[in-house]
Amino acid sequence: MRVLILGGDGYLGWPTAMHLSRRGHEVAVADNYFRRQACAALNCEPLIPVPDLHERARLWEAVSGHRLQVHIGDACDYDFLSRVFQGFQPEGTVHYAEQPSAPYSMMNREAAVFTLTNNLVSTANLVHAVAELAPGCQIVKLGTMGVYGTPNIDIEEGYLEVEHKGRRHRFLYPKEPGSLYHVTKAQDGDLLYFYSRIWGLRVTDLHQGPVYGVETEESGTDPRLATIFNYDHIFGTVLNRFLVQAVAGVPLTVYGKGGQTRGYLNLKDTLACVELALRNPAQPGQYRVFNQFTETFAVNDLAVRVQAAARELGLAVEVRHLPNPRREAEEHYYHPVHTGLRELGLQPHYLTPEVLKGMLELVSRHRAAIVTDRILPEVAWKK
Amino acid sequence: MRVLILGGDGYLGWPTAMHLSRRGHEVAVADNYFRRQACAALNCEPLIPVPDLHERARLWEAVSGHRLQVHIGDACDYDFLSRVFQGFQPEGTVHYAEQPSAPYSMMNREAAVFTLTNNLVSTANLVHAVAELAPGCQIVKLGTMGVYGTPNIDIEEGYLEVEHKGRRHRFLYPKEPGSLYHVTKAQDGDLLYFYSRIWGLRVTDLHQGPVYGVETEESGTDPRLATIFNYDHIFGTVLNRFLVQAVAGVPLTVYGKGGQTRGYLNLKDTLACVELALRNPAQPGQYRVFNQFTETFAVNDLAVRVQAAARELGLAVEVRHLPNPRREAEEHYYHPVHTGLRELGLQPHYLTPEVLKGMLELVSRHRAAIVTDRILPEVAWKK
Repeated sequence: MRVLILGGDGYLGWPTAMHLSRRGHEVAVADNYFRRQACAALNCEPLIPVPDLHERARLWEAVSGHRLQVHIGDACDYDFLSRVFQGFQPEGTVHYAEQPSAPYSMMNREAAVFTLTNNLVSTANLVHAVAELAPGCQIVKLGTMGVYGTPNIDIEEGYLEVEHKGRRHRFLYPKEPGSLYHVTKAQDGDLLYFYSRIWGLRVTDLHQGPVYGVETEESGTDPRLATIFNYDHIFGTVLNRFLVQAVAGVPLTVYGKGGQTRGYLNLKDTLACVELALRNPAQPGQYRVFNQFTETFAVNDLAVRVQAAARELGLAVEVRHLPNPRREAEEHYYHPVHTGLRELGLQPHYLTPEVLKGMLELVSRHRAAIVTDRILPEVAWKK
Repeated sequence: MRVLILGGDGYLGWPTAMHLSRRGHEVAVADNYFRRQACAALNCEPLIPVPDLHERARLWEAVSGHRLQVHIGDACDYDFLSRVFQGFQPEGTVHYAEQPSAPYSMMNREAAVFTLTNNLVSTANLVHAVAELAPGCQIVKLGTMGVYGTPNIDIEEGYLEVEHKGRRHRFLYPKEPGSLYHVTKAQDGDLLYFYSRIWGLRVTDLHQGPVYGVETEESGTDPRLATIFNYDHIFGTVLNRFLVQAVAGVPLTVYGKGGQTRGYLNLKDTLACVELALRNPAQPGQYRVFNQFTETFAVNDLAVRVQAAARELGLAVEVRHLPNPRREAEEHYYHPVHTGLRELGLQPHYLTPEVLKGMLELVSRHRAAIVTDRILPEVAWKK
């Protein structure tokens, strides 16, 4: 299958490109380097530098023999996107080309408006490119479990059958996103749901939990092929923050009570899920949703697990609770369904002590590069 | 109360400005003339020309003694919006500054992306202007009943209490919008719901049905003070189309089966609703929704009523069914709750034969200006 990856230089985009090309797909990657520029501007550089996308593609071809098409440009620029579509004629598109950080979206008005316009215009452009230039091309869009928030009922997989006053209706599952970023990820889904119904598009929305891990089967022994590892307060995840804090000898910082529970998954499983979605496409007119994670943890659970794994490596780790810069429930019901991808054949990798120790060892090898000033939260949700 | 009206030159914005200023409010109007420019560009001029906003304000001051502040500029331009906020210090803002046409949003990619960015960036800018420059200022945003679509259960007023697997949760009522325009009106509500919770904003979202009528108490005897009357396929409503077709002696065009049922209201009631919302503001942190209409009609009902009123004026009127250019249910359950505004004191005006005859007489006085080429649909939902 010819697969176009929008956001192909990102944390997920680059490993997806290698993964799909190794499995026989013809792959083109497009990226506008937003993440690189924002990391540089905000002093949020990843722990381990990675080459640019042309160089990554060159290295990957040298070790694997698979050639990737590389396009540097912006999916919000329809001239660019339509040139890529016309040249490559994708049969599937994986849409990662969105601003992916909740704190970034809450920094200030400019960042909020950028997040809104980037995430929605890129999606609207993609919809039109498919309808006009590549009819039948399926769209796999990265979503987030964060769109659901933490409702007091079970989170179903995309849709909710409601009984009300003796009548029934099946709705798209209502969303309660907790940051402007998460709002835009509900909104991009609304766009895709609408156009799939009107124009018969084939869409899969992967409502994914936070991902962990850097190395994949494809990154192999060349560290230049690994994906990025952000641990900062803008682009880092809570688990990456804990891993770096453990290695740096500073306390793990839990926001608030630490009962915030989310679904997590290994980077290797993200790659498998994307390929499963592509190989088992949505039907024409179908907006299909998968809840993409393999295990749920409260933040406190993650802290305890990192502490235990670090202890086995001889690192003494404290945990400290900070006032929560976000507005979110810190103790809540959380029961999301996630059977769709298992039914397609996903074989999960779990967050074992060995996985945590492997990541701690990776961070330890780059201990000298850690900038602890990048870690503590500087963006507050409340005005 | 100092009230800023964004979109103050529009079909609702201008009569709202007169109405509120006559009731003792200090009023500023801002508009970027999008609608005028689009009407000119698309050959969709209103039936009766109206003066520009500065001239309208001059005429209104001459007859009423009330001075309006006039600002020509774009709410998507934050420099402009923040200058208006700093100078006027509004205590309430009425947000009408959105692209209001479903067919416009479905014309092509450029119009879709314009609708998306205009409607969401104007809302995001407003939220930030209130939070940064006028804390406590309430926001009254024009929404649309169209965001709900036509679900098979009762449409509650904004929120839906769901019981699921023995547990309960109250969601914002799920939306099933039927055009890209309607999608953006659900999305602007998502933005306001989010920021009201995070920043304690006071927001009322008026989910309004199609409005009819031109004259109000304030437009009085000077036709230059009346609002615009669009009957074209882009900015016209179904009722306006029928009234013009009846006068022009061409058949009333019903799209599809004509069972499409919606909630309608008189322009005078829109003005009353907006003032009721302002005088009874939402609480800090509250995103309040009213379903704003007074009666429901199927399209076929409207055709029959226009036919009957026209007959009384000696006009013989035929009805013709066209293939539906939209994708929508043509026969469906429709039971929307609309008690909130009645509880605040709304005294409805209904769509009586006298009201219809009054509008037919108005159109008849401008019969020579009718351009029937503007009426038939040219924008199809399906690709």
